[in-house]
Amino acid sequence: MKNNFSYSILKSSKNSYANRGMGLESDINLANEYYRIKDIAYIYKKPTPIKLVKVDYTKGLIKEAYFETPSTTDYNGIYKGKYIDFEAKETVSKTSFALSNIHAHQIKHLINVKNKGAISFIIIRFSTLDKTYLLETNILEEFINTSERKSIPYDYIKEYGYELKIKYSPRIDYLEVIDKLYFGGNNNG
Amino acid sequence: MKNNFSYSILKSSKNSYANRGMGLESDINLANEYYRIKDIAYIYKKPTPIKLVKVDYTKGLIKEAYFETPSTTDYNGIYKGKYIDFEAKETVSKTSFALSNIHAHQIKHLINVKNKGAISFIIIRFSTLDKTYLLETNILEEFINTSERKSIPYDYIKEYGYELKIKYSPRIDYLEVIDKLYFGGNNNG
Repeated sequence: MKNNFSYSILKSSKNSYANRGMGLESDINLANEYYRIKDIAYIYKKPTPIKLVKVDYTKGLIKEAYFETPSTTDYNGIYKGKYIDFEAKETVSKTSFALSNIHAHQIKHLINVKNKGAISFIIIRFSTLDKTYLLETNILEEFINTSERKSIPYDYIKEYGYELKIKYSPRIDYLEVIDKLYFGGNNNG
Repeated sequence: MKNNFSYSILKSSKNSYANRGMGLESDINLANEYYRIKDIAYIYKKPTPIKLVKVDYTKGLIKEAYFETPSTTDYNGIYKGKYIDFEAKETVSKTSFALSNIHAHQIKHLINVKNKGAISFIIIRFSTLDKTYLLETNILEEFINTSERKSIPYDYIKEYGYELKIKYSPRIDYLEVIDKLYFGGNNNG
């Protein structure tokens, strides 16, 4: 588990150097920054949880530590009075999104907060196809409850999700979709 | 700044060893766990942000890293459909709470999310007095806007805040106060 996780960190780190400013995480961080600057929404990426082993507190220097598996999703915050919570993942597959990309307790978390009134969803980028979709948690939950499959077919996501088109600024404007779904299509703000 | 921050980490780490399970952070973590188990609320402590310098990704081992100043508050989540956001601090002072205990951008963050409809506040423990108060962000904001003082007098917090009495389980039930303030005093759940 620890090795898989650190490997995914390595991959995403390599990607972000290769496609500087072009990865999904970077797009979302830039969108969130844009929303904050415009006073539209306050949504942040949570820091990666780290288990500290050796620390020199006089220097604030961590000498030995390990990545931990996150217990919640990566992003949360507030928009128009609503609690927003989501996870974002990229896949190179052209045909499906493997559910193993999201930890089981992260899916549980998305369902828990949805049941408490959150706007919760996942953002999936099919990087080979250059397509990005927002899929609401209730759709994800229904798929898990009604299907034996370990991955969500691309066609299912295309049918029940909402495509996030790449724009100029912000490159990914996921709150535009949230506006249409929850606020009658009003403009941001 | 970095040294101050790591020093405060050292202090809180020492405290949590000295009073195992008795510190404010521990009380709040236990309350949040209680709320989650009872399906009352989903509120988590954010991991401390860390700047990675040297990492052995094959082992998932961090060899050199530094503590970073958090850009938001420590705790956020959802309760009864509302976005909850707060910071928690302890002070040994018997007479006032120094505003320097909270970073300026954390205060800004509390005000930003409050303006978007969040339930936002700070929890302050006067550990020498063994008293803990919840102070809403609008009161904090008003104090900052109308006073030249760099610290909030204890009497001000006592007058405008809400005392969190120590109970058995959870030791600190801060949502009880939130219920009274925002939901007409209904029971949790």
